[in-house]
Amino acid sequence: MAQLYSSVKPTPMLKDELDIVIPTIRNLDFLEMWRPFFEQYHLIIVQDGDPSKVINIPEGFDYELYNRNDINRILGPKASCISFKDSACRCFGYMVSKKKYIYTIDDDCFVAKDPTGKEINALEQHIKNLLSPSTPHFFNTLYDPYRDGADFVRGYPFSMREGAITAVSHGLWLNIPDYDAPTQLVKPLEKNSRKFDLPLRLPILYVDAVMTIPKGTLFPMCGMNLAFDRELIGPAMYFGLMGDGQPIGRYDDMWAGWCVKVICDHMGWGVKTGLPYIWHSKASNPFVNLKKEYNGIFWQEEAIPFFQSVTLPKECTSVQQCYLELAKLVKEKLGKVDPYFITLATGMVTWIEAWEELNSEEGTEAKAPNGKNE
Amino acid sequence: MAQLYSSVKPTPMLKDELDIVIPTIRNLDFLEMWRPFFEQYHLIIVQDGDPSKVINIPEGFDYELYNRNDINRILGPKASCISFKDSACRCFGYMVSKKKYIYTIDDDCFVAKDPTGKEINALEQHIKNLLSPSTPHFFNTLYDPYRDGADFVRGYPFSMREGAITAVSHGLWLNIPDYDAPTQLVKPLEKNSRKFDLPLRLPILYVDAVMTIPKGTLFPMCGMNLAFDRELIGPAMYFGLMGDGQPIGRYDDMWAGWCVKVICDHMGWGVKTGLPYIWHSKASNPFVNLKKEYNGIFWQEEAIPFFQSVTLPKECTSVQQCYLELAKLVKEKLGKVDPYFITLATGMVTWIEAWEELNSEEGTEAKAPNGKNE
Repeated sequence: MAQLYSSVKPTPMLKDELDIVIPTIRNLDFLEMWRPFFEQYHLIIVQDGDPSKVINIPEGFDYELYNRNDINRILGPKASCISFKDSACRCFGYMVSKKKYIYTIDDDCFVAKDPTGKEINALEQHIKNLLSPSTPHFFNTLYDPYRDGADFVRGYPFSMREGAITAVSHGLWLNIPDYDAPTQLVKPLEKNSRKFDLPLRLPILYVDAVMTIPKGTLFPMCGMNLAFDRELIGPAMYFGLMGDGQPIGRYDDMWAGWCVKVICDHMGWGVKTGLPYIWHSKASNPFVNLKKEYNGIFWQEEAIPFFQSVTLPKECTSVQQCYLELAKLVKEKLGKVDPYFITLATGMVTWIEAWEELNSEEGTEAKAPNGKNE
Repeated sequence: MAQLYSSVKPTPMLKDELDIVIPTIRNLDFLEMWRPFFEQYHLIIVQDGDPSKVINIPEGFDYELYNRNDINRILGPKASCISFKDSACRCFGYMVSKKKYIYTIDDDCFVAKDPTGKEINALEQHIKNLLSPSTPHFFNTLYDPYRDGADFVRGYPFSMREGAITAVSHGLWLNIPDYDAPTQLVKPLEKNSRKFDLPLRLPILYVDAVMTIPKGTLFPMCGMNLAFDRELIGPAMYFGLMGDGQPIGRYDDMWAGWCVKVICDHMGWGVKTGLPYIWHSKASNPFVNLKKEYNGIFWQEEAIPFFQSVTLPKECTSVQQCYLELAKLVKEKLGKVDPYFITLATGMVTWIEAWEELNSEEGTEAKAPNGKNE
């Protein structure tokens, strides 16, 4: 079953069109392993927590770094929409980027290997996913029909084979899966794997597939290994208000995923999930996670049916319009569940205002990153 | 990445609860390869074409065989709903079975091997799929959460983790994929692979996944390697009117798939696709296929939006009721596309009548199969 198509086109690596956004509170030693894959890209590092802490970045990377002081200085009062002490702060990086595409990755994620032992170039796969169309309007049983060696199966309507523009590429994780605190707690074999001689964690299956999440279907979007077309969907990639001063954490990416999916469905754009895998090195503390998550665990039971039933009016023809409409509905419908959602709806509006400000012609100058190698 | 869970439960093989349905026009030598996997099951062979032809069945299999004369005798005038000279005739086998589950397979499908070289027990995987729940109401990014080693990811609502009853398990194909005639024609590397020294067909990717097709999403269901819960969804598994005397062929399974999916969505049941793979040995002739398919290629452009927009009334609480309602809508809406759909709608009603007749207490005696080893 060797691959041998000499006609398979090389992937354009979009060097000048993609920024890598990394939220962090520590030295970025993990970048060493990514050097061959990331070195040619510009990094936007969003430093969370104590801004006086100095974060070491390995030599040779081209980056700009923003800490809380920078965020406050650049956004002024609108900095209120950017979370503190939660990886939700990463969305500030999406806002200050000027590139078409964003790849965001957590700093405990390393290069994974495919089943043949070859290191996976996650970014290349994300680019493939983003540059090829999606199939949100009909399901293809052989997964991504645009992948080399795949196609549309019998019974796939020809009028739908052009597909839709892809806005989001959601990658997965080997080793430690993205579980919630209760699942972490009830999987003792995973939690206690050091206590035994045998490797007691069941391996995460390597599934060699990319697929489109159908229109009308929500999904749990994880921010650990995520790429998207910032020019298309950027203004909806808001990771919400989490962490410091908020009654919730670890729902930043979920929130963004619900909003993004509803808006992509409305705009006719596709969201893909599957390849590429990264190697997630360590599970976070399930007790700490439970404290952050417990409100979210309740609230998602209301929030998901809300997002499943949302219909955006036809008049919303831009992502910004869709997002402001969604903020209005969140306030109106989820505000009844908890006042937190009223605060969040306000944050959503502030986010759009800040996005517009930074991404207008005049906004560009407001940026003064604490960068190097620029 | 070795599997080592000793707690993984063995799969109940449902020997007395599952029939294997095989439509054929030839000797069933292909069963030799399936012997270790099929021998313990009862086979229902639906002989298509000339009923005077004698079909050899390898020794040792427990089977009943029905040819066209049997179908006419058993169903009387209602035999009009069973296609002739098209593999759609297989659905007669679903009707005469008395088992809870059906597995149906084409006679040019052989045992496939997984990437480690191990022979795949397709039936065992289908049973696993059918006996574990589905997740039609929210998407799990790690695919089937009920599979050993998998789980629900962070952000999956806890209230939805019980899942839904699984009604259908749709398996895939290695070697020759299930392409339509135009795709067969425009893939010269596949068509001409014997002309070259190199194996020029791109391999079909082995994707180690089972997933639920979300609620509200239609899919192209292929009848080559398909299992279902006959007690649940059997009355909707009608393969339509195809082949002899009809203006269409090779849309039998697609038709069934659209109807089944709409009804499963209405009833709250799940449809899974993915594993297991079988080895599809040879592509059918693309020119012959084009002749059979061309009307379907046009009509699916109307039929799919129709099925995508169908809402069944709440009053329909059984599959039979749903199916008769669907027949009414097909006549009303698709009848305008082509008179064929009026004929098909009539066939749908006759199918339900015949199903009821054969599956009532009195109906049981009407069966007089041309069987052996009973």
